[in-house]
Amino acid sequence: MPLPPRLLAAPLRFAAVATVLTAAPLAADEGMWLFTAPPREQLRERYQFEPSAEWLEHLRLSSIRFGNGASASFVSEDGLVMTNHHVGRGTIQKLSTPERNLLQNGFLARQPKDEIPCPDLELNVLASIEDVTTRVNAAVPHGADGVAAAAARRKVIAEIEKESLEATKLRSDVIKLYQGGQYHLYRYKRYTEVKLVFAPESDLAKFGGDPDNFEYPRYSFDVAIFRVYENGQPVKLPHYLRWSKNGPAEGELTFVSGHPGRTNRLLTMAELAFLRDTAYPAQSLRQKRDEVLLLSWAARSEENARRANNVLPGVQNGRKARDGGLAALYDPTFWAAKQRAETEFRQQLETTPEKFAEARQAFERIATAQKTITELAPRFRLLEQAGGFSGDAFTIARTLLRAAEELPKPNGQRLPEFGDAAKTSRELQLFSPKPIFPDLEILRLGDALQALSETLGAEDPLVVKVLAGKSPRARAAEVIGGTKVLDVATRRALYQGGTAAVEAARDPLIELARLVDPAAREVRKQVEAAEEVKTQGQNALAKARFDLQGTGRYPDATSSLRLSFGVVKGYPENGRNIPAMTDLAGLYQRAREHRNQPPFDLPASALQAEKKVNGKVPFNFVSTHDIIGGNSGSPMVNRAGEFVGLIFDGNLQSLGTDFAHDERVGRAVSVHSSAILEVLEKVYGATELVQELRRGKR
Amino acid sequence: MPLPPRLLAAPLRFAAVATVLTAAPLAADEGMWLFTAPPREQLRERYQFEPSAEWLEHLRLSSIRFGNGASASFVSEDGLVMTNHHVGRGTIQKLSTPERNLLQNGFLARQPKDEIPCPDLELNVLASIEDVTTRVNAAVPHGADGVAAAAARRKVIAEIEKESLEATKLRSDVIKLYQGGQYHLYRYKRYTEVKLVFAPESDLAKFGGDPDNFEYPRYSFDVAIFRVYENGQPVKLPHYLRWSKNGPAEGELTFVSGHPGRTNRLLTMAELAFLRDTAYPAQSLRQKRDEVLLLSWAARSEENARRANNVLPGVQNGRKARDGGLAALYDPTFWAAKQRAETEFRQQLETTPEKFAEARQAFERIATAQKTITELAPRFRLLEQAGGFSGDAFTIARTLLRAAEELPKPNGQRLPEFGDAAKTSRELQLFSPKPIFPDLEILRLGDALQALSETLGAEDPLVVKVLAGKSPRARAAEVIGGTKVLDVATRRALYQGGTAAVEAARDPLIELARLVDPAAREVRKQVEAAEEVKTQGQNALAKARFDLQGTGRYPDATSSLRLSFGVVKGYPENGRNIPAMTDLAGLYQRAREHRNQPPFDLPASALQAEKKVNGKVPFNFVSTHDIIGGNSGSPMVNRAGEFVGLIFDGNLQSLGTDFAHDERVGRAVSVHSSAILEVLEKVYGATELVQELRRGKR
Repeated sequence: MPLPPRLLAAPLRFAAVATVLTAAPLAADEGMWLFTAPPREQLRERYQFEPSAEWLEHLRLSSIRFGNGASASFVSEDGLVMTNHHVGRGTIQKLSTPERNLLQNGFLARQPKDEIPCPDLELNVLASIEDVTTRVNAAVPHGADGVAAAAARRKVIAEIEKESLEATKLRSDVIKLYQGGQYHLYRYKRYTEVKLVFAPESDLAKFGGDPDNFEYPRYSFDVAIFRVYENGQPVKLPHYLRWSKNGPAEGELTFVSGHPGRTNRLLTMAELAFLRDTAYPAQSLRQKRDEVLLLSWAARSEENARRANNVLPGVQNGRKARDGGLAALYDPTFWAAKQRAETEFRQQLETTPEKFAEARQAFERIATAQKTITELAPRFRLLEQAGGFSGDAFTIARTLLRAAEELPKPNGQRLPEFGDAAKTSRELQLFSPKPIFPDLEILRLGDALQALSETLGAEDPLVVKVLAGKSPRARAAEVIGGTKVLDVATRRALYQGGTAAVEAARDPLIELARLVDPAAREVRKQVEAAEEVKTQGQNALAKARFDLQGTGRYPDATSSLRLSFGVVKGYPENGRNIPAMTDLAGLYQRAREHRNQPPFDLPASALQAEKKVNGKVPFNFVSTHDIIGGNSGSPMVNRAGEFVGLIFDGNLQSLGTDFAHDERVGRAVSVHSSAILEVLEKVYGATELVQELRRGKR
Repeated sequence: MPLPPRLLAAPLRFAAVATVLTAAPLAADEGMWLFTAPPREQLRERYQFEPSAEWLEHLRLSSIRFGNGASASFVSEDGLVMTNHHVGRGTIQKLSTPERNLLQNGFLARQPKDEIPCPDLELNVLASIEDVTTRVNAAVPHGADGVAAAAARRKVIAEIEKESLEATKLRSDVIKLYQGGQYHLYRYKRYTEVKLVFAPESDLAKFGGDPDNFEYPRYSFDVAIFRVYENGQPVKLPHYLRWSKNGPAEGELTFVSGHPGRTNRLLTMAELAFLRDTAYPAQSLRQKRDEVLLLSWAARSEENARRANNVLPGVQNGRKARDGGLAALYDPTFWAAKQRAETEFRQQLETTPEKFAEARQAFERIATAQKTITELAPRFRLLEQAGGFSGDAFTIARTLLRAAEELPKPNGQRLPEFGDAAKTSRELQLFSPKPIFPDLEILRLGDALQALSETLGAEDPLVVKVLAGKSPRARAAEVIGGTKVLDVATRRALYQGGTAAVEAARDPLIELARLVDPAAREVRKQVEAAEEVKTQGQNALAKARFDLQGTGRYPDATSSLRLSFGVVKGYPENGRNIPAMTDLAGLYQRAREHRNQPPFDLPASALQAEKKVNGKVPFNFVSTHDIIGGNSGSPMVNRAGEFVGLIFDGNLQSLGTDFAHDERVGRAVSVHSSAILEVLEKVYGATELVQELRRGKR
């Protein structure tokens, strides 16, 4: 029986990776570049393009960090915000009720008065950047142990953030770059008055569902549109992206501006081995456990499905991403390339052993610290990261508990998430009226408590105390049934009442958090001390890299604003060339191939519009840009800075991009700007919105 | 927000468990009784019923062990076999092709000439029973270590089985009972000429799918009908079950005769702790991993879904059963009851310490052996149980490898599955023309290899050899792409050619099995030695239990024929009473509630027949019988020995039944005999079949 070629293809995809670790010049559309250090050389040599300071500033000030980490952009003078449906999904879900299911049925506001306020959404625009490396490093005593150094570093960062916040009133975050080789102060203009303008039906937004996620060719209208207000009026913006007339052509140079969440391209082999052998397998298994839990519960009724739908897509997406990362780590070609790069770098260090003494020792120090982290990993994951206490309710209860303990402390001595700089975001989240479903909370907490017991052991003293003589499910039912923190007003009162109020409440869920907190804080402290040792080691390696290779490198992604460049381009797969673009006719064809069955079912709006829609309009497309999770919702612009596409995914071959970009086959996936207009107009009749996008104003 | 009562209900369900471990008389419809030691006392006291020897023999000889462990019964003189669709599913799948999808579309043979031969199906009828305890125990040298004792026990069992086979030509299996307190020789009349007569569409058979599995109220037509032939003609049977005119009434005493697979009601606390802390969590996580792997692959295309469908329901069913078992083990009431029973038993032993010296030491010996087994568990699961090498292809390859090594040995020295007594069954399986899909094999083997690596470590020497410098997926593609064992003729040639042929083949999959085999055999040997120590300990406990409590007890289930008794009866759930029976009208109603969407979709046949079907006919019902996995397909009969129902499931509350039966809420779920006739006649127009069932002959 002949085998499907896809499965037999030997994965050669990492043959050309890891240039970032070596001294060789970057000869690819690679890199998530700082706006303060754009890839001038690469753009000049490969594309004869020189971005001006104004060009960069305009793109930066048109770019948005959406909520807690995803991306978006301004696309009209009157504050229209373009992002992905899956980025706005949490917000759209919060605005939905059984009677008004915006997730399922979509939404269009024809006039600003119809737009729906979003209760707890924060958008940030990067207003300015300042290098504070010297001040941060000076505050950390040389030779201090991990705990002391971490505390000192945290303290100075909190000081810088607070000073800046007070001086500028701008949200101020100190960003770690180059594994601690640099620290930058990012000041953000914050927008919290946001309204929903448009969302398609979920079926069209995530057409193809989990099966098509990370796959290509693709047919998703993963689009959502919001509008930003100030003082009850739509903002008037000096910077926004103008709409391109035709969108991108194949081979055309374009740019992506967004917030890649995290890459691990500068990790040492010891750190990579930890991910391969410990962190990723555990995360993947847990995601699969959660996925089955939610899937089987959702299947019992339509209302269960609606409730689970707020959590499930994230779990499935995370599982696919994690398994993709594991596939990369299990690829011997990839592993050998990484190993070779590290060996070469270490050989370079040996050429001037005295100069690089600290860097040479760093590998061993990092490996030792990593060993500590590996040993602590299960407890850290279960206790501090609350893997043993899943659900929104526990997170709220612990925030209340810790806020009461942390807020009275001096700013620099608090856990960072309770720092003054994080106040607005913290309170926005804590007081969010997002619906919390007790049955789903019991389901998730019960299973998490059982996972806790299975991992630490049913006779572990902490587990015994946590379960309090009950089964995991019964214990979860007890604390969720008894807690008052699902009520926003109660939360607010407890938060404002501080320690006395929180203690007096005798809330069973807060008391559960209290029971666990000493152990959780202790393991966090130990992990952070080990992380600090790694930071110092990576710091030494970063310095050596600057010395040996110059500064013409980009740092690993850290949820901070980055610029990627590339071209619209197909890719080879099993001897075939996958074309760069799909079209709208293909959407209808794929639905028919699956007899319009979920997740390949089109909503009535799209089915009815088929004759009106121009099937030749490009729909989704792939490009060589170096992106990763967090880039969702990023705008793609052309040389003229015009909006040509909306990033929403990567292909399967890009799932190793955490560790290395592979220009040969790794691809970003976007919605074409022309498809956005065509669908808005023909499927939704959103004439006013199309006009605003075309004109750049209302 | 009020909580759904179901989730808040404290699980009190094990309050009355574990009488089996104490001296108290059994005061419940409890027990999976031997036909040689039926529950005469209980039946007399509770139900004033005395089964005669003829009654028992007739039921035994009408009962069938179906394939490798499930249950069925003869329901006509002319060899009609009644079982569940999910029991016959593997066979129906094997008879299906993309062009003739019997699983999806169902099947009905109106005449014997239309019946379809099943290629590799074996049915067994328990012809006679002989107690061989004395001979088995005499052959095991007193005081021998685990390895020697296990070998001696295996040897004498193989001798007994072979002698019996040669003398009687009947399949002869020595069955371990009471944890080794007794050994019985079971002789089976074997039928291998079996044809498919009737199967409903899969959608009707498993209506409600995974969401409704183990749930109640229920609406599944989980029925399949076969016919047994000898020498090309339907058999003429002296024993078969006559059809009841009206089926069971509520509260009426009925009996279930079938093959419960395994219970663990006599385990010590050390053994239960192993299941709770090691075995079950690992199995559950692996099942969830497999489930997500198969679900996400199946979702990509309809053909993938068809292929995965052969494996997926078993994985989902196993996951739900395992999680149910874990829920029981995590129930503190259950645990305390088990603990109390063990404590009481140990106190009884202390009353005559010298007499029970061996039993008193047994607890410690069992705990020590269990510790060894716990340590070996991951390697045993991955290597010997092939959890690191999932798929049909590897199993075939290893069978060929081991057959070449084992078959030349004297019968008593072989691994039991290569004994002469197992020859026919082994060859039937090995040469089965069941379709094997290379893409699915690569998917499963690739993920299993990665699980192997994740568990034993990427740098474990055996893992390094197994992966041979490739990624798990690439290695799986290589060996599945290169193997010839998917071809039945090749298998036959290699099996017959022995060692020389197997070596000469240089088949990459067989060579992979060879690479792993020394380690797999070694860990098996160690585990079996520890199991033997446990057997000896349990043997001593069983003897003490006979002394203290008499023989009026039933042994744990071991896939051998058992008799359960009970009544049709609803049960309380969250203050409501769940009625005992559903009806056919309820089926249509539930489909409508789910807008006829999968898995709540009715096939066209059932939709079209709605007006003809009498909605008041009882459909599924629950009863108090003590059953477990393996009982699927068991007949339920009334006092007159007439067929009144077809067991196909238990409710969620019965999932702890592995460890204790809970008559209060644990229930068996059956298809009502009247529903079988009504649906056959009105939905399928199977007039001839209905007539044969009613008359008991063609």
